[in-house]
Amino acid sequence: MPIPPLASGPQGPGALRPLLDTVLDALGAGAEARGGPLPAGGPEAVAARMRDALGDPLPAEGDPQALHRLVHALTAGSADPADPLCAAHLHTPPLAVATAADLAASVLNPSLDSWDQAPAASALEALVTEALAKEVHPTATPAKNTPAAPAPAADAPARTTPEGTALVTTGGTESNQLAVLLARETHPGVQLICGDNAHHSLPRAAWLLGLPEPLTVPAPAGTLDPAALDHALSRLNGRTALVTATAGTTDAGLIDPLPDIADLCESHGARLHIDAAYGGGLLFSDRRRALLTGLDRAHTVALDLHKLGWQPVAAGLFAVRDSTDLAALALPHSRLRSSGGTPMADYLNAEDDTEAGFPDLLGRSLRTTRRPDILKIAVTLKTLGRTGLGALVDQVCDLAQEFAALVDAHPGFELHDRPTISTVLFRPTGASDDTVAAVRRKLLHDGRAVIGRAALDGRLWFKTTLLNPHSRPGDLTALLKLIEVAQSADLPEGTEGITPT
Amino acid sequence: MPIPPLASGPQGPGALRPLLDTVLDALGAGAEARGGPLPAGGPEAVAARMRDALGDPLPAEGDPQALHRLVHALTAGSADPADPLCAAHLHTPPLAVATAADLAASVLNPSLDSWDQAPAASALEALVTEALAKEVHPTATPAKNTPAAPAPAADAPARTTPEGTALVTTGGTESNQLAVLLARETHPGVQLICGDNAHHSLPRAAWLLGLPEPLTVPAPAGTLDPAALDHALSRLNGRTALVTATAGTTDAGLIDPLPDIADLCESHGARLHIDAAYGGGLLFSDRRRALLTGLDRAHTVALDLHKLGWQPVAAGLFAVRDSTDLAALALPHSRLRSSGGTPMADYLNAEDDTEAGFPDLLGRSLRTTRRPDILKIAVTLKTLGRTGLGALVDQVCDLAQEFAALVDAHPGFELHDRPTISTVLFRPTGASDDTVAAVRRKLLHDGRAVIGRAALDGRLWFKTTLLNPHSRPGDLTALLKLIEVAQSADLPEGTEGITPT
Repeated sequence: MPIPPLASGPQGPGALRPLLDTVLDALGAGAEARGGPLPAGGPEAVAARMRDALGDPLPAEGDPQALHRLVHALTAGSADPADPLCAAHLHTPPLAVATAADLAASVLNPSLDSWDQAPAASALEALVTEALAKEVHPTATPAKNTPAAPAPAADAPARTTPEGTALVTTGGTESNQLAVLLARETHPGVQLICGDNAHHSLPRAAWLLGLPEPLTVPAPAGTLDPAALDHALSRLNGRTALVTATAGTTDAGLIDPLPDIADLCESHGARLHIDAAYGGGLLFSDRRRALLTGLDRAHTVALDLHKLGWQPVAAGLFAVRDSTDLAALALPHSRLRSSGGTPMADYLNAEDDTEAGFPDLLGRSLRTTRRPDILKIAVTLKTLGRTGLGALVDQVCDLAQEFAALVDAHPGFELHDRPTISTVLFRPTGASDDTVAAVRRKLLHDGRAVIGRAALDGRLWFKTTLLNPHSRPGDLTALLKLIEVAQSADLPEGTEGITPT
Repeated sequence: MPIPPLASGPQGPGALRPLLDTVLDALGAGAEARGGPLPAGGPEAVAARMRDALGDPLPAEGDPQALHRLVHALTAGSADPADPLCAAHLHTPPLAVATAADLAASVLNPSLDSWDQAPAASALEALVTEALAKEVHPTATPAKNTPAAPAPAADAPARTTPEGTALVTTGGTESNQLAVLLARETHPGVQLICGDNAHHSLPRAAWLLGLPEPLTVPAPAGTLDPAALDHALSRLNGRTALVTATAGTTDAGLIDPLPDIADLCESHGARLHIDAAYGGGLLFSDRRRALLTGLDRAHTVALDLHKLGWQPVAAGLFAVRDSTDLAALALPHSRLRSSGGTPMADYLNAEDDTEAGFPDLLGRSLRTTRRPDILKIAVTLKTLGRTGLGALVDQVCDLAQEFAALVDAHPGFELHDRPTISTVLFRPTGASDDTVAAVRRKLLHDGRAVIGRAALDGRLWFKTTLLNPHSRPGDLTALLKLIEVAQSADLPEGTEGITPT
């Protein structure tokens, strides 16, 4: 067997072209075979079809048809967020231009753990994260984190304004971990305080990092209660707190009262992290940016451009108001160096190389090998501009308003509340929680719609997260119709399992 | 401005086609503009060119030319691992077929945190990781981790053989973190013991997870010394140890004496993790699999298919001999559920949905949103088969042997040792360490070659990691010539910085 071609090098584009044609063909045919927003038949049937398409996962001899067959099978078995009836989660249909750019990242395969694996990619990451850091913390002077920028002289005057920066992460979960880690390192003995509306990754981060369980503050209306936070902060007996607030809760897309929380953190000397994984994209909209007032007062912010940013996963960002906080990430390296032992990552960041101007990139992530997710982000920001990106944000938020009005006017449905971002919660009038859960599962099982669920105010609701800028109100009318049919035709009140078709 | 097209949905393939043409064109033209394995001019010049190409990272209005311009600039500024003279790191040129498959992952954008975002992708991941787990731990019965598989009955007989499984990770660093985390959770008070040849991510994981600093065991010849390990294990006063061994060290590509280490771990009741991020790919080669004898005795194993597996980043795997160890990953969720509070991730894994057959995927990663890196891996395993993948492994290992012989026969160079995998260390005869470092930087600065460095036996060596199956011995003869020219023409003995051209 001849050695198979590589993606880059002089023969790369020529070798890729027919393979990309194969992928596009399989994507089209697979979507046609699926014929809806997700595959029909439920988990067992989908797994069985995938097993048949795959066969022996590691056969003795190769099969040149595998690319088409597996891409076709994956497409036929996918829940496609570009289908207007796939609207459950923060599961974004990516823009074609971002996806095309991401191909170049795979082809060139730079790894952002050393300059000599990623000369241009490391420079691009520094420039784009600097610009995005400025969006989050406009009053902080952006850090000069371009790899080639000279280090400040030892006798430089003390800074008066903190310098902001941003790291690229795999998503809100990693960003939230970093927020807790930086707090642990800068404030030993720190106590994490979360709203009970916080993302599950925050208590998980405390567990991961060996910290005590977080204090939980009630969020009776879905957003963190400032009076309860004040009470919790008053009882810390001198310990420093890391307070986390949410801008875009997972269940209802709500935004905590950020200015009040920031005031409380300031008066109690607490550190503030805002998980804006979902809501952060509102920064791009002139009409909606004010919803995030107070965001810039957080020490750290999580923001996912694979949510309101239309990137393929992953495109997480972690913005830090004062870049000197990041010294904590380099700490274990420095400690090893100064302990007189062999510098443990000498192959990536030898001191004489750093002194000679080759930047040390290891302090910018908890990962070592790291894909340049910044390329698709950069291409998207430049191709759309702030205006184009803001228009997409407004489009899905406006659509959510329209859908909420549609639900509210419909006698068969009850609306939870007007949406803050693009999440709409509703339920069939008078239905039991079991019916809500069963209808959702039936629509999933039959391959008709992907809608989510959320427990709020003691009841279970359907959750739709509208992230598809091409969806139209008519699509959502159709969604309501599907729910009515599923509810009336097949489901006696209280049905719990999947009703077989 | 019209709403820009999405990557998937009925219009996806048609929208993508011209954009992919743009990317392929920019990749070709960018490589031509670079004209070598990496861009010339050093970090400041590369960053300046990237800054010019980018302009304002977030302009008010969009620019439809951005895709071509940025992909061109990134390509022109990349270190291309498909160039035979780019041979420093574990930085792999990806296969065209794997890269094409990865495009489909970006297009469909499934996220592996819930079944209804990834019906087929979660099934594919279960099947392929099961097969790969069996490669690492062939004696363990593979776990039935297919999402649709029924859970064992409560009155099922106790298992006699542990069931293996594997998780997909972002790379060796995350896999090593998971190894330390599982040890922390299954053996409270565990003491990490690493060779001083271990990857820097292991002491970093101990720090991250709030554990004491690892005990370090000497590796005087580049591999962990079993006598020293025995001594360390004998002095733990009853604490359980997690011993980490390395199969493919970063500096020299050496493999620790795995059977001896496994014997010691067994006799001392210690847990064993093997970091085979580099060497794990030897499993695919019939001629070289025996180098990994003892691997299957480890409780956990890290293996990166973006190294000896020719995948675009990321394609990390974490194999676990006994899948019940993974219960630790689900722990914080269970704890929250049983504490009577709101289950924190109810939107992804509600109990009634799980009971109704919709699998809970959250216990398979520390991340939440997660890209299906398994697709490119599956397509590669099927397209090449074990024979084809093994041939690639043998190709680069044989090339390393040839290169070592070439160096050994050359009067101007000293060979460190015959390579174990595909890493060759050498240095100019009689040169100082400063010269070695300066020659490497000069080749980088001038855009002529990417070679690495490693400090071993008290001296600095050039490090080449051969991972390009298309490289030929003639390419490596050219590399030696380049080094001779750089050394003789420009560098007085002891030059430390980059010599400007």
